[in-house]
Order: sequence, then structure tokens, then C-alpha cells
Amino acid sequence: MAQQHLDPTNPLAGPVTGDALAGYLRAQATEFLRALRLHRETGGSTANGSHGSNGSEDAVDAARALRRAVRRISGSLHTFRPLLDPDWSESMRPELAWLSGTLAMEHAYAARLERLLLALHRLSGAVFPGQSAGVAVGSRSAGAEPVPKKAEPGNAGPPSHPAPAPDRGNLTVGAAKAGALLERQLTLARTRAHSSALQALGSSRFHAVADNIAVLASEVPLTTTAPTTGLHPMAAAAEERLTDAVGSLPLVTAGSPYNAAALIHGLSPDPAPHPQDAPWHQVRLLLRLHRYAREVLDGDRGPVDVRLLAAGQALDRHRDASEAAAAAAQAARTPRIAPATAYALGVLHADQRHEVEAARFAFQQCWQKQTVGTP
Amino acid sequence: MAQQHLDPTNPLAGPVTGDALAGYLRAQATEFLRALRLHRETGGSTANGSHGSNGSEDAVDAARALRRAVRRISGSLHTFRPLLDPDWSESMRPELAWLSGTLAMEHAYAARLERLLLALHRLSGAVFPGQSAGVAVGSRSAGAEPVPKKAEPGNAGPPSHPAPAPDRGNLTVGAAKAGALLERQLTLARTRAHSSALQALGSSRFHAVADNIAVLASEVPLTTTAPTTGLHPMAAAAEERLTDAVGSLPLVTAGSPYNAAALIHGLSPDPAPHPQDAPWHQVRLLLRLHRYAREVLDGDRGPVDVRLLAAGQALDRHRDASEAAAAAAQAARTPRIAPATAYALGVLHADQRHEVEAARFAFQQCWQKQTVGTP
Repeated sequence: MAQQHLDPTNPLAGPVTGDALAGYLRAQATEFLRALRLHRETGGSTANGSHGSNGSEDAVDAARALRRAVRRISGSLHTFRPLLDPDWSESMRPELAWLSGTLAMEHAYAARLERLLLALHRLSGAVFPGQSAGVAVGSRSAGAEPVPKKAEPGNAGPPSHPAPAPDRGNLTVGAAKAGALLERQLTLARTRAHSSALQALGSSRFHAVADNIAVLASEVPLTTTAPTTGLHPMAAAAEERLTDAVGSLPLVTAGSPYNAAALIHGLSPDPAPHPQDAPWHQVRLLLRLHRYAREVLDGDRGPVDVRLLAAGQALDRHRDASEAAAAAAQAARTPRIAPATAYALGVLHADQRHEVEAARFAFQQCWQKQTVGTP
Repeated sequence: MAQQHLDPTNPLAGPVTGDALAGYLRAQATEFLRALRLHRETGGSTANGSHGSNGSEDAVDAARALRRAVRRISGSLHTFRPLLDPDWSESMRPELAWLSGTLAMEHAYAARLERLLLALHRLSGAVFPGQSAGVAVGSRSAGAEPVPKKAEPGNAGPPSHPAPAPDRGNLTVGAAKAGALLERQLTLARTRAHSSALQALGSSRFHAVADNIAVLASEVPLTTTAPTTGLHPMAAAAEERLTDAVGSLPLVTAGSPYNAAALIHGLSPDPAPHPQDAPWHQVRLLLRLHRYAREVLDGDRGPVDVRLLAAGQALDRHRDASEAAAAAAQAARTPRIAPATAYALGVLHADQRHEVEAARFAFQQCWQKQTVGTP
């Protein structure tokens, strides 16, 4: 991979220097300003507006575009640090991290609630309108690479997805109560996150960041040597950090289906997120930095690396499932809940931890393919 | 497979007729009588005797040998029905089924409790003395065929099993209470099963069966044409019934890891065992009949088919996990349990349903290998 994409002798890639970085940062800053304008026009009312209206959808899009631009600027400042004015970039980076974190929370709570409610329905055997049982069954492995089918047609038989059973489709009392509890807790968290985000966007701290990014849209504070310095060594270093981190993941275990490793502390007294997840979260961040560095180098010419995208999606799924499992475990600690509610939350927690395991398997499959496929 | 083992032109197999069946039945009947004598000598006190003592171990062995012989006699009567005196075999078969069922219950409850308590400890991250964390992690996939390791040494890294975390090793209150509840319920069920078995072994109904089997040990009531009739067609029919049943299993789904199909009704209001498990249980029985038929045909000369054994073990695991999951769900319906207990039982239920899914995957892997490997 390093050879294929970052080789400075590759005639297609050309000599990519600090100028490309400046162009990339200008484009992202412009995108940020555009999204910010859109966000203000739509009022940013994602939490209270009705979901179906165009205004609300635009607000969601604007918020996503804001987060997207901030992540890319922040990541580029990190990876290509030596090419940028140190005082400026050192002052910007914590501000961008704060902004990125603040903007992400509301979406994260909304997505977590949606994931948990979908899982509750799936676990109750409910079939959604317009969604066949087969789709519901296959949904978990959607991100996974399909396993090679070695079945002989005569013996494998038809897929035979379990037929939808409408009489089993209703939520049990426990599942319904668990859903209501999660909805209450996560909606509250989401509303608070929404208020925090609105407050942040009105703060003088934010205005300082926005002013800085506005300057960035026209003038990138490169060091004097940057325009003639190649970007490849720094991008290669980012990739190496990723490769090292992946190398220390338990990929052999992850590649053996049903290794039951993700639920190993499923009943642990510690309510904190599983320590075993941390290296995977770290790889997720490093993969993102690697992807952004590639964007800087390849520009619009670069081919989309679908395997890298798939690996990133598997790690996103890993993070989402890990946090959803923690939310279910946390909800089960609510005082005075009914045993049936707690039981449903236990099933839900274990289900999401298995989703964590499934995401690791999917990542391992992507990564192996990637490694084998390159010269 | 049919060609390989049941081909009548195979010179090694020779012409196997009703005489071989008679020999097999005599041997199994003798084994039954031996086990029965041993069972009486040891007092059959498996439920109340201390587990470590030799007497209790002998009693367990004797009970296992009894069940083993009864299953084989019963299965042979079923598969080779046309060769046996119809009145005799029709009167014997329900009696053998009753005996087999009665004898199996006590062991089933004991094994179920052990499986659930082990799972509770595993889910709490507890490491047993003399058992490394790696073993605990790998235990679930022990029955599964190892997945081909395509990892390049440089990227895959060491297995990196999660290190044992002694401070997380203690059971939580919920897990401990769930364990105590399951122990109470399943020990009660086991004690009742033990009493029923003892009562059955003292009943006149049992004495009639035992007398019949004693006659069988010396004289098998074959039909007049049986000694010259080949066994192959009937054995082939048993194999065909198995192949047909396997063909209707959702093997494509089962072969895709993390298909999440087994937990699809994890929160269903219906406490009964999952209907989706029934075809797999059926295949388990048909596989056993096929295996016994092969024992009759091959005698002691027959090679042990390890793949068939592995497939059978996967289906045993499927059955055990399915019933353990149902027991956990049932225990969660006990009135007035604490939410923490219900939560632990929910996690346990989901864990065992995933074990069901893992067992299906293991079976699919065995079966595929078997099918691909034969001409």
C-alpha cells in the first residue's frame, strides 16, 4: 500500500508538497464556512424540529458537514504539523478538538438510541414495514465481507431465512419498557448535547475558532520551507502508526468467528467501557488520519479505496456497538426498574457486545484482504 | 460418502446381512445388562453421592453406558425395522424411548447447570484455577473447525489474548444471584429426575424391558429372510433421510459468521424453545441414527469418521446451548427476583443463543468439509 500510493517516484502522484496541503486546508475551511452559514440559516434546530421537514434535514446535513470539515482540518494539522506555523497550529488544535467533540455529541446520542431501538425490535422478531425478514437477519453482517461459499448446490439448500412470524412481532413488556427507558435517558442526553452545541456555537470561544478558520480559507500559515517540502514522509509516518496499531490488535482471535472474546467481561462489576475496546478505538482514529492524509496527497484524482472505507466502517460499527452496549448496561443500573426491563437490557447488552465482536471480525476480513492484495 | 462406505461392491465391506444386525444387537444387549449390574452395584446414587468418590463416578459411568446401549438398540430397531419381528419391535420401541428419556433427564439437568455456571463465570471474566485466560476465551470455538489463517506474520501480530484481570474476576451481585437461582431450580429438577429414574428402574415396566433385552442378548427375533437380506439399502435410506434434513437447514446463513439469526426471537414473549431450533434437533437425531447404522455395517473394522463425530458434537452443543438459553429465560420469569439478577440472566440467555449460532456455524463447517472431501 505504501508503495502503491505514497511512492514519490510514481509519475501519476507527482511531487506533492506543502502547496497541496495549503489547497486542501483552504478547501476544507471554505467548506466549514459554507456549512456554518447553512447551519445558521436552518437555525440548527435538529433536536426540537420535526424530523421529516426539510429545514430539519438541512440542519442535520449542515451539522454533519461542519463536523466533517473540522475533523479534516484537525487531522491535517496533526499529520502535517512540521509544515505549519507551530504557534498557530498549537493554539488551533485543542480548539478544533473541543469543537469536534461538542458538535459530535448530539448526533452520537441520536444514533445510539436509534441503534438500540432497532436492536430491540430485531430481538423481538419484529419485521418493519417494507423490510423483509431476510434483510433483518442479514443486517448485522452487512458490513462484513461475504464468506466464500464452498457449498455444493445439492447439499447447501436454499438460504431458507426464517419466515417472519407476525404473532411474535410485538414487543414484550420488558422490551417495550427497556425501549422507553433508553428513549428517556438518551433523549435527555441528546437534548442536553443539543443545548451545549448551540451554546458553544454562540460562545466567544467558537467565534475565535471560526475567525481563525475564515483566515485559513484564504491564507494558510505554512512554514517558509513548506511549499517545497514533500508531504510523503509525513503521510507515510501516519500510515506506519496505523500499521503498528493494527499489528498489536488481537486479529487472530478476531478472525476466528464466535471467539466470544467481546463479551468476556459482560457481567463485570465495572460499568466503564471495556478496556479491551480501547486499542480498536485507537486504530479507528489512526485509520481516519491515514485516510485524510491520503486525501491531501491524492486530491480529487485519488481513487476511492473501498477496502479502506469498509475497514473504517467496521471500526465505526465497533465504536457504536461498544457505546450502545455500555448505554444498555448503564440503563440497567437505573434504580427501581422491573426485572423484565432489566432482563431485556441484559439481552440487549450482550447483543451489542456480539455486534462488537462481529465488527472486529469484519475489520479483520477487510484488513487481511487489503494486506494480501497489495504487492 | 454413500459410495465410499455403503457400496455393496466394496470388497472390504463384504456382504453385510441381518446376521451382522443380530450380532450388533446381541452385543448392545450384553452391554446393557453389564451396565445395569454395575448401576445396581453402585446404588445409582449419582444425585446424592459426593462427586469425588469412586462409587459416584462409577454410577455416572454406569448410567451413561445404560443410556448408550438403549439408544443404540432403539436406533437399530428403527433403521432396520423390516428385518425384525414386527410385533416384537413395535412393542419394544416405545418402551426403549421411555427408558432412554427417563435415564437422560438427570444427566441433562446436571450438564445444563454446569454449562450455565461456567458461562456466568466466563462472562464475569473470572479465570478458573489451572485455566489460562486464553483457554477461557477460546473455549467457545473449541468445537469449531479452525478458520484458515491467512494473516501475514508481520501484520497479524501475536494472538494477544486479553490478559486476565483479577480485579474483575469476582462475580457481580447479579451474576452470583443468577447462579444461585439457576442452581436452586436446576438442582431441584435434577433431584426429581433422579427420583424418577430410580423409580423407573424399580418399576415392573422396566423389568419387562430388561427381560426383553436379556432375551435379546442371546436370541434376536429376526424375520426368516433377514439372515440373507443385505443391510445396505436400509442404512442408505437412513443416510438419505439425514442428507435431506441437512439440505433443508439454512446452511448458507449458518455459514456466514455473526448472522445474528439465533437471537432473532431473543425477546419474544413466547417462553417455549425457539421453533427455529427444531430442524437442527431433528438433524441431530438423524445423524445419530446414521452413525449407529454405520456401526452395524462396519462393525469393529470401521474407521472412526472424525468429521461425522465433529458434526455430531456441534449438534450436541447446539441442543445443550438451546436448552440452557431456555433455562436462563425461564429463570428470569421467577417472580420477585432482583433487577440485577434478571439482567445477568438476560446476558446469559443471549450468550447461550450466540453459542447456538456458533454451533450451527461449526456444524456447517464440518458438513461442508465432509461434502467437499468425498468423490
